[in-house]
Amino acid sequence: MPSYNLVSKEMKEDETVVQVADKAFGGGSFSVIAGPCAVENSEELIDLAIFLREAGVQILRGGVFKPRTSPYSFQGLGKEGLGFLAEAGQLAGLPVVTEVLDVRDLDMVLQYVDMVQIGSRNMQNFGLLREVGRSKHPVLLKRGLSATVEEWLLAAEYILTEGNQQVILCERGIRTFETATRNTLDISAIPLVKQLSHLPVIADPSHATGRRELVVPVGRAAVMAGADGLMIEVHPAPERALSDGAQSLRPEELKNLMRGLKDLLLVRDEINKGTGA
Amino acid sequence: MPSYNLVSKEMKEDETVVQVADKAFGGGSFSVIAGPCAVENSEELIDLAIFLREAGVQILRGGVFKPRTSPYSFQGLGKEGLGFLAEAGQLAGLPVVTEVLDVRDLDMVLQYVDMVQIGSRNMQNFGLLREVGRSKHPVLLKRGLSATVEEWLLAAEYILTEGNQQVILCERGIRTFETATRNTLDISAIPLVKQLSHLPVIADPSHATGRRELVVPVGRAAVMAGADGLMIEVHPAPERALSDGAQSLRPEELKNLMRGLKDLLLVRDEINKGTGA
Amino acid sequence: MPSYNLVSKEMKEDETVVQVADKAFGGGSFSVIAGPCAVENSEELIDLAIFLREAGVQILRGGVFKPRTSPYSFQGLGKEGLGFLAEAGQLAGLPVVTEVLDVRDLDMVLQYVDMVQIGSRNMQNFGLLREVGRSKHPVLLKRGLSATVEEWLLAAEYILTEGNQQVILCERGIRTFETATRNTLDISAIPLVKQLSHLPVIADPSHATGRRELVVPVGRAAVMAGADGLMIEVHPAPERALSDGAQSLRPEELKNLMRGLKDLLLVRDEINKGTGA
Amino acid sequence: MPSYNLVSKEMKEDETVVQVADKAFGGGSFSVIAGPCAVENSEELIDLAIFLREAGVQILRGGVFKPRTSPYSFQGLGKEGLGFLAEAGQLAGLPVVTEVLDVRDLDMVLQYVDMVQIGSRNMQNFGLLREVGRSKHPVLLKRGLSATVEEWLLAAEYILTEGNQQVILCERGIRTFETATRNTLDISAIPLVKQLSHLPVIADPSHATGRRELVVPVGRAAVMAGADGLMIEVHPAPERALSDGAQSLRPEELKNLMRGLKDLLLVRDEINKGTGA
Repeated sequence: MPSYNLVSKEMKEDETVVQVADKAFGGGSFSVIAGPCAVENSEELIDLAIFLREAGVQILRGGVFKPRTSPYSFQGLGKEGLGFLAEAGQLAGLPVVTEVLDVRDLDMVLQYVDMVQIGSRNMQNFGLLREVGRSKHPVLLKRGLSATVEEWLLAAEYILTEGNQQVILCERGIRTFETATRNTLDISAIPLVKQLSHLPVIADPSHATGRRELVVPVGRAAVMAGADGLMIEVHPAPERALSDGAQSLRPEELKNLMRGLKDLLLVRDEINKGTGA
Repeated sequence: MPSYNLVSKEMKEDETVVQVADKAFGGGSFSVIAGPCAVENSEELIDLAIFLREAGVQILRGGVFKPRTSPYSFQGLGKEGLGFLAEAGQLAGLPVVTEVLDVRDLDMVLQYVDMVQIGSRNMQNFGLLREVGRSKHPVLLKRGLSATVEEWLLAAEYILTEGNQQVILCERGIRTFETATRNTLDISAIPLVKQLSHLPVIADPSHATGRRELVVPVGRAAVMAGADGLMIEVHPAPERALSDGAQSLRPEELKNLMRGLKDLLLVRDEINKGTGA
Repeated sequence: MPSYNLVSKEMKEDETVVQVADKAFGGGSFSVIAGPCAVENSEELIDLAIFLREAGVQILRGGVFKPRTSPYSFQGLGKEGLGFLAEAGQLAGLPVVTEVLDVRDLDMVLQYVDMVQIGSRNMQNFGLLREVGRSKHPVLLKRGLSATVEEWLLAAEYILTEGNQQVILCERGIRTFETATRNTLDISAIPLVKQLSHLPVIADPSHATGRRELVVPVGRAAVMAGADGLMIEVHPAPERALSDGAQSLRPEELKNLMRGLKDLLLVRDEINKGTGA
Repeated sequence: MPSYNLVSKEMKEDETVVQVADKAFGGGSFSVIAGPCAVENSEELIDLAIFLREAGVQILRGGVFKPRTSPYSFQGLGKEGLGFLAEAGQLAGLPVVTEVLDVRDLDMVLQYVDMVQIGSRNMQNFGLLREVGRSKHPVLLKRGLSATVEEWLLAAEYILTEGNQQVILCERGIRTFETATRNTLDISAIPLVKQLSHLPVIADPSHATGRRELVVPVGRAAVMAGADGLMIEVHPAPERALSDGAQSLRPEELKNLMRGLKDLLLVRDEINKGTGA
């Protein structure tokens, strides 16, 4: 008897498709979320959003409330940034997602975005989980830095118990002893979650590795492991990014990743058909 | 240059004394917080509180909002439990502390308790940190399950930047590969934090070990490492506790721990004087 | 200045090709090592070896000296098993690899096998590293359970300083807090090592996951991350295997993995060409 | 049913006393092992040994075969160092202990030392474990960097199965995500091991913390947790030590630790008597 119930595959055999505006995750649908770590200004974001749409990206991301380890780091543009993000999404024709940190900001945030993200530090912020569960918005639930797969699924269960099944799980690396990378992407969690749950699961190789030069190979690996999507940080000029510059792809690098993805998804489908895997 | 500032010993050389009603932590003062994991009912709590005061305990703890991994576990008595806790404290003559999970509950909680606890899952719930910083209540800040000492001090920095210096740090074990204990108490964090910061630091051997038979020796070890206090789970009948029974001391065991503490603190003072450590 | 030297890409830009009899790893060559965790008897091993060769496997593995946590577990067939392994390899036309635990067994082992494996428990058995460095045999060097990438490369450096450059690095999972899998495959270590070193790197998804149903997706992920090969445990009847049954593929499952690999390697080459990655 | 047998308390209720020449560990006996990380030269070692004996230290330590992560680091003086160590011990009237790395060196080492140490990297070097088990010399078995308590006890079981019960277990810190200290001393492992096994257990706060200023408080904590001894690195001039200078106490600091120990052990005995713990 698993400790979770509503999220389990035993409860619901067919994969849940999470619909974010006209884009989808799960049940055979694969989408890429990309954008800057933090919304920094309006013009650049609009330009980047248009670039991303043309490169084949499905959803625009951008942080406006930033969870920062230090109170002295850039904390995000807040409400002003929400407006920038919504506008850029609209102009580029892309749905948008942002992280909500504080349960008191949720209603406001939901007016601007198509999907709301629960970050790894809040994976067990149970009040926030319940509130996004009461909304009908899609939720991107990141795995906690030191959460087991079971704890992660139970966090999703909190959302589903409130009536919202539109939950995407995002593997973003766990904390280990290894210091060469920011975190350690738990690649096995992707097929494991897909075997245990009907919810779609995506990977965030940007936060997992913390190093630009590892994002593309690790992202492709996640696809082959069965991910239903990717979340990638992109910045027009990473060297002057206000946060996470070291792990942000340059626009050209993102384009290369996107070009390879189509072929990769094709071969994944063929292999899975051919081998019954 | 450390990344934190207000919490650092360089900023303020003398140890901060945190005053919880008439009890104190730091600057030579040592206090014990004890009580059940969760407030379960009024009568038992009152009896236990009186027992604890007579055993020499300084502060009564009791959870009313419980952070539970599963939505199907007992979630605490909520507001009703707050009343029980405040009443038991008053009858026994002990200040009380409880955990607050949701920033929206903070004002209500502060009306009932002498100190508010930020649990390990919320160590980086920055909105909550800021709000307890704006209050003038003492704050017990537990270390996150996978937080480095630096991240922990930066979480405290969030509280101090809002004007509240009455912060007690609580080492409660970190998550490691070892499965024989619930967590691994990072004993070295106690002297390390005392060298880096002027804030008092206490230890919670109950959550750290998860095993009753280890609580007393690990608690004593924390004292010798320099802790300014202990936080101990006690239950009149652990085998029927609604949460954390396996790690709760029986009342008699708590009494034994308390008796040994006086001698231990005496020898600690003598050794420190004698050796200049 | 990196702490290692001979293994670094700065020292030698072109990828080292490790030649194991007529099979190769690195520099564009990809090989699969497969076989049982432990050699259990002669007949079954011969049948399996022939099956593996027909399925496209390049190298036969089989443990004869087993590093077992408990002295009461099956310790391997020892010298007798070496004979069985060599014979099965010869009959199937496959080179063979086995692990050596004790430096005193090395000379004997080298008479029977084409490549010698240093297991994760011995990654820092420096005497053993030096001795395999003095031999001219190819060496498969597994990453230690809690070794950083830098420590792993320095272990390889011990072998190269003795004059043997025929070293294959094998990522086999690191120890983390997650208990749903036996270990956590550090997928990012694969591209990271390939950027830091000229040595080939392969992945062992069997030991990394410890669960049969995760071996194939994680193995494919490792390929897309850039691995130069895979090491897979296969057993004709895992349910009666003397060790590691839960993570051993059945012969039919191995066949499916092999069929998919060709297409996957093709698309990997195309993507890398197309995108310059 | 525990997986180990000979080491378990169920098998043998009374504590094993390990006798190292005229010094003892366990069963109420407490001893301190101290000395430099590595034997560097003869004169300094003799002076230090005499100082240590006068300060109340029971056993002299000094590494002559050093397990170094890098092949380019100082590897120890080897056989010459063994002579220096034995001579210093003799002149000071202290038994000596050193680490053996390579099973082929064991016979030679045993001619020089009173106790042989198995280091953390070799905790699962099963050939070495069996050979020290066949000798009748006392063995100091360090816990592996990422070994669970169960794996550690099973490593000791390998020694006992060969007939040697003179084994001291040494907790020296495990590898975690925390980078402020070299390792994380698992303080709860001390009482846990004493509850599970009849073997004595000591702590090495030098390797656990990696920082001189934490060695004394963490060492004292280990005593209160129930340790049967301590192992401490001391160097006459840590700033020019060839290895582990940052964690080596200066002679005066060691003296202070030793002075405090007597009182601490007294209070520990009294408390344990008084409280029945």
